[in-house]
Amino acid sequence: MGSYVEIIENLTLILGENRIKTDLESLKIWGCDRTRHFDPKPQAILFPQTTEQVQQIVRLANQLKFAITPSGGRTGLSAGAVAANGEFVISLDKMNQVISFFPADRMVRVQAGMITEDLQNYALQQNLFFPVDLAASGSSQIGGNISTNAGGIKVIRYGMTRNWVLGLTVVTGNGDILRLNKGMVKNATGYAMQHLFIGGEGTLGLITEADIRLDRVPKNLQVLVFGVPEFAAIMPILSKFQAEIDLTAFEFFDQRVMEIVMAHSQLQPPLAAPCPYYVLIEFEAPYEIILEKAMQIFESCMEQGFVLDGVISQSIEQAKNLWRLREDISESCAPYLPYKVDVSVLISYIDDFIKDVEKVLKQHHPEFKICWFGHIGDGNLHLNILKPQNLDKDEFYAQCKHAMRYVFDIVEKYDGAISAEHGIGMTKKAYLGYSRSDEEIVYMKRIKSIFDHNLLINPGKIFD
Amino acid sequence: MGSYVEIIENLTLILGENRIKTDLESLKIWGCDRTRHFDPKPQAILFPQTTEQVQQIVRLANQLKFAITPSGGRTGLSAGAVAANGEFVISLDKMNQVISFFPADRMVRVQAGMITEDLQNYALQQNLFFPVDLAASGSSQIGGNISTNAGGIKVIRYGMTRNWVLGLTVVTGNGDILRLNKGMVKNATGYAMQHLFIGGEGTLGLITEADIRLDRVPKNLQVLVFGVPEFAAIMPILSKFQAEIDLTAFEFFDQRVMEIVMAHSQLQPPLAAPCPYYVLIEFEAPYEIILEKAMQIFESCMEQGFVLDGVISQSIEQAKNLWRLREDISESCAPYLPYKVDVSVLISYIDDFIKDVEKVLKQHHPEFKICWFGHIGDGNLHLNILKPQNLDKDEFYAQCKHAMRYVFDIVEKYDGAISAEHGIGMTKKAYLGYSRSDEEIVYMKRIKSIFDHNLLINPGKIFD
Repeated sequence: MGSYVEIIENLTLILGENRIKTDLESLKIWGCDRTRHFDPKPQAILFPQTTEQVQQIVRLANQLKFAITPSGGRTGLSAGAVAANGEFVISLDKMNQVISFFPADRMVRVQAGMITEDLQNYALQQNLFFPVDLAASGSSQIGGNISTNAGGIKVIRYGMTRNWVLGLTVVTGNGDILRLNKGMVKNATGYAMQHLFIGGEGTLGLITEADIRLDRVPKNLQVLVFGVPEFAAIMPILSKFQAEIDLTAFEFFDQRVMEIVMAHSQLQPPLAAPCPYYVLIEFEAPYEIILEKAMQIFESCMEQGFVLDGVISQSIEQAKNLWRLREDISESCAPYLPYKVDVSVLISYIDDFIKDVEKVLKQHHPEFKICWFGHIGDGNLHLNILKPQNLDKDEFYAQCKHAMRYVFDIVEKYDGAISAEHGIGMTKKAYLGYSRSDEEIVYMKRIKSIFDHNLLINPGKIFD
Repeated sequence: MGSYVEIIENLTLILGENRIKTDLESLKIWGCDRTRHFDPKPQAILFPQTTEQVQQIVRLANQLKFAITPSGGRTGLSAGAVAANGEFVISLDKMNQVISFFPADRMVRVQAGMITEDLQNYALQQNLFFPVDLAASGSSQIGGNISTNAGGIKVIRYGMTRNWVLGLTVVTGNGDILRLNKGMVKNATGYAMQHLFIGGEGTLGLITEADIRLDRVPKNLQVLVFGVPEFAAIMPILSKFQAEIDLTAFEFFDQRVMEIVMAHSQLQPPLAAPCPYYVLIEFEAPYEIILEKAMQIFESCMEQGFVLDGVISQSIEQAKNLWRLREDISESCAPYLPYKVDVSVLISYIDDFIKDVEKVLKQHHPEFKICWFGHIGDGNLHLNILKPQNLDKDEFYAQCKHAMRYVFDIVEKYDGAISAEHGIGMTKKAYLGYSRSDEEIVYMKRIKSIFDHNLLINPGKIFD
C-alpha cells in the first residue's frame, strides 16, 4: 500500500482539496451505515462528481493498493457500506443529478447518488412514478437501492429494484468504465452483466449512473385492513384477491406488533376487537366497480371464516393512517432493541416455516418475545426478536446471534434466503452457506476477482 | 480429445443405447436451428432425462475434451444451437416434465425441455397464465426461451422471459450443478448468477430446470388496429394510451407489410383506405368503462390527426383476425427470402433511427425493398429486407451481410442493440462490437471461462 500522504496527494490531484474529508467527525459519519456492530475506521471520505473521477480514484487504488468502500445514503442494515478496516470511502453524495429524461421511453438517466425520494418526486413532476419505496427513501440513494436490489412495500405489484433498472454505468474494481444495457428493454447481445452489480453490494465496482424505468402514476389507491383468525387463513385471502384484482401491496403483522405500534404511534385500533393476525391490502380503484369487486371478495372471505373483521379507507387521510399500522412498525419496535431477521421462503412454505421457527426459539430461548410481519405477498418475512427487559444488551445480541443458527437451519430446510432484501454485508457473512452452496460461493468469488483483480473494492463484504 | 469410440462407450454407460442417436438423419435434424447459414455436423445427439445425467455427460466432456452444443426446440434465429463443428448435441427433448407446482406462489418448477406452448397450457389448466408468447411457441422449449431471454408480443406488459424466471438449475461447463435462486421473489444473498444464464445462449452451461412465475389470466382482451399517417404519430398514440390503460401489446407495421400479409393470408383490409403505417393495440377490458376510455382516447387521437381510421374487435374471432395482420408477417414475407434484422434502440430514437437506416440503404442498395414492423412499445424493430427478384439468392445474402455494417453503424450511433431478442449466436458474432465495448467483451470472455474452464460448452457462439 502506498503511504497515506502519497495517496492523499494523488487523490487531491484528482478531486481537489474540498472533495476529501479526513476529520474525525466525517470519518465517523461516512464510515458506517445504520448497523452499529462494527466501528467505522475509514482513512478518508472522497466525494467525486463524475464517473471519470471515480475511475481515476479506482485506478489509483489499484496502483497504490488501497481499499475502497462505496457509500450511498448509508441506510443499509447489513453493514455493507461500513468501512471498518481502514478503507477509503467513495461517497456518491455529490453525484445526485438527473442526466437526461426520455419521455417516450418513460426512462430517466440519473447519477447514482440521487436520493430515492428525489427520484420519486422527479418522476411525479413528469407525471410518472418510481415504484421502489421503503422506509429509508428519504435518505437512501438509488445506487444503494440498486446495489442491494431493494424491495420495499410494493414488490407484489412492481417487483424489486432490479425490475426498474434498464442500464448501469459502472466503474469496475479494475478501473474500467462499463456502460451496461444503455436503457434498453430488449437487448440480446451477450451476458447481462448489469445483473451482477444489481444486488452485488458494491463488491464488484461502483455504480455511477443508472437508467431507471418509470411507470404511470397509480390511481385512487384503496387500503383495506383485515383481522384474521389464524395464519393459515392469510394465503386464501391473498389468492382470492389476486385472482380478481392486481394488488399493489399485501402485508401482514401479528397482534403483538399491532399493540406495540398502537401504543407507540398513539393510533386507534382499526377494528372493534383484537385479532391474532392482520393483513393490509392495497390496490388501485380507478373505477367504482373495482371497489365493489373488492367488497364482494371481502364478504366471501368473511363467510368462509378467513376474515374476522375489516376496515376500508374512506379517504386519503384514512388510507395513510391504515398504512401507519404497517409503516410505523420499525420505529415502534426500536425501543425494544429488536434483533431483526429478514428472510424469504416460498409462500407455500411460510406456514410451516413460522411454526418451526417458533418451536425452536421457544425451546432454546423461551424468554424471547418474537413478532412477525412482512411482505408476505412475496414470501418475505421480518422476524423481530425483542430484548427481554432483564437481559443485558450485549448478552441479548450474543444470544440472538447464537439463535440464528437454529433459524437459518430452518431457512435452509425450506430452501429459503437468509436475507430477502437487507443483504449479506458483514452481518450475515458467516451464515451465507445456509442459502448458497459451496460451489455457488466458489463461483461468486471467481466473479468477484474478474471485476476486481486486486480485491480492493468493498473487501470483506458478502464473503472474505 | 478422446477417441469417438471411447466417448460413445462412456456416453452409453451414462445414458443407455436408446438415448444416443448417430444416424445421419438425426444428426441433421438435431444439429441445427432455424438458420440455414451453417451446415450441421454433430458427432452424436444425446437425450438425457435428468440433471444428474447432464452433469455426467459434461464431466465426461471435460475428461475426454469434447465439445457440447445444448439444444432445445431448435427454433433459434441466430445459429446459437447449431452444431457446426463436430460437437456432441445435448437435446433437452426428454426433459419435458412438470416437477412441481406451487399454487400459493403462482410458480411452477419444470424441466427445461418443456415446450413453451405446453407450459402455457399447463398454466391455463391451473387458471394461471404464462405470458411469454412468440411465433415459435409450439416448438420452442422453455430452456431455449430462457437462454435467449425471449421477448415476443406481450413484452410491453409482461417484460422479457427474464422477468418470469424465479430460479434455475444449471450444470455449468465445469460440470457443477448449481441451484440458483430456488424460486424466490426476494433473495439478497450475493450475486444473482441466474441472470448470466438467462440470455447466455447456452455458453456457460446447460439449464436443466426452471422455476417459472405465472400470472393471472388476462380478461376480455380487446384489439384495436389504427391507420397512422406518419411514423412520428405513433409515439403520441402510445403515450396517450399508456397514461390511462395498461396495454398488453403495442405493435406496428408499414403498408408494404400490410399488403404482403393480406395477399398471403387472404385477409380483408381492416380499414377503408390504405395508410402509411398501422398500429395494433391490445389491452384488457374486464369492465365496460375501460372500453369507453379507449374510445375516448381513439377519438382524441383522430382529432389531433395521429390516427386516420381505426377498427376495434367486436368478438374473439375478430380479435384473432386482427392479430393475424401482425402474426402472419413472418410467414407472409418468407417467399421473398427476407434478410431479417432484429434491433433495439430507445423509443426516443426510433424515428431518427429509421430515417437514417432508410437513407443509407437507399444510397448503397437502392434495389432493396425493406419493410418495418415490430414491438415498438419496447423499442424493438424488425427490419426485413426482401430479395429483389432479379438477384441471385447467395448474392442477395452477401449484399445484405455487407449492408449490415451500415445498419449497425447507425445502431451504434444510437446506443442500440444489434439484437433485441434473437441473440448473437454465430450469425451476429462478427458484429458484437457494435453493441458491446471491447472491455465488456473481455469481461464476458472471462465470465465464460469461469463457468467453462475448458471452453467446451457451445463454443464459437456469441464470441470466439
